[in-house]
Amino acid sequence: MKYPNGQRKTHAPIQRSRQKKADFSNRGMTLEEDINQTNQAYLREGKAVIHKKPTPVQIVDVDFPKRSAAVIREAYFKQASTTDYNGIYKGSYIDFEAKETKNKTSFPLSNIHDHQVQHMKQIVEHGGICFILIRFSLLEETFFFAAEKLFPYWERQTKGGRKSIPYKDIQQEGHFIPFKFHIRVDYLSVIDEMYL
Amino acid sequence: MKYPNGQRKTHAPIQRSRQKKADFSNRGMTLEEDINQTNQAYLREGKAVIHKKPTPVQIVDVDFPKRSAAVIREAYFKQASTTDYNGIYKGSYIDFEAKETKNKTSFPLSNIHDHQVQHMKQIVEHGGICFILIRFSLLEETFFFAAEKLFPYWERQTKGGRKSIPYKDIQQEGHFIPFKFHIRVDYLSVIDEMYL
Repeated sequence: MKYPNGQRKTHAPIQRSRQKKADFSNRGMTLEEDINQTNQAYLREGKAVIHKKPTPVQIVDVDFPKRSAAVIREAYFKQASTTDYNGIYKGSYIDFEAKETKNKTSFPLSNIHDHQVQHMKQIVEHGGICFILIRFSLLEETFFFAAEKLFPYWERQTKGGRKSIPYKDIQQEGHFIPFKFHIRVDYLSVIDEMYL
Repeated sequence: MKYPNGQRKTHAPIQRSRQKKADFSNRGMTLEEDINQTNQAYLREGKAVIHKKPTPVQIVDVDFPKRSAAVIREAYFKQASTTDYNGIYKGSYIDFEAKETKNKTSFPLSNIHDHQVQHMKQIVEHGGICFILIRFSLLEETFFFAAEKLFPYWERQTKGGRKSIPYKDIQQEGHFIPFKFHIRVDYLSVIDEMYL
């Protein structure tokens, strides 16, 4: 049984820390899992080599128990300074970020950080193919949105403008990616169409 | 005062876990720091966009204290499935691993894992520029060694052959990278010479 916020019902009152942990592990998992499955399929078929970067973590304390693996005992999440995914496709450098929103009418720009946008600009300047994959999870729709299309919305926001991209703009300026069973988020098909 | 193994002398008997921690934090720092400085210089000058990937960590337990940042309380180091560095230079996909050895006469292949070599092969097949940077730390020499040159040594090893690459082979088949103050490990100059 699921509650409206998407969390499973649990048996009894649980500790605050446990509950928060559940929140954490669910955050954005669906799109990420779909992309991982897609990237594995691309890799298996020899189509492209694209990987997710590990989550950046600041390690503070490590234990080395005898006869067993090192255990990290204190560490903190760091803000990513680049995008989450990169790799190579048909000789081209590929770089993207993936974001899910529960919003139905727009994509909030607060999902992206300023240094990620700066990174995207550098990639575009150096001739890389750069974009974001945006999923409207309640609509069950995923879009390819080129970095070049994102930048004007970002600039507008920094000048006090609208803090989100309207859904209809994403529909018009982005590319809808149909869900397929074999390759769940086939974003390379959009790249073939747009760039190559 | 430094001991022969490169560790600083400490004041008093210390706990085993502390001592091991010092080992961990020193491991390979010098070459990594030099490459980070180099990549920052490349980025600042608009020459290339190349970053180190975060250390892969399997997170098991996270605490969410009130009013402060989430603390990772249990996590483990995972073996990297790709190389540590990648990015874009003059429109080309760049991918490499960096390794230091205290050995003076050869580079032990145990520094590299099989799935890293498989990853390197995939990158070469897809037209990327792939290599390892090898530092002989006691000789204070750093070499650029193309992935294509590495593969035969790797194959030989898996068939029961020699488990290291002789220093003289690295001198002959690799490219010596001079240490510069401004850009400490200027590996892009080798790429210019070899590929572009």
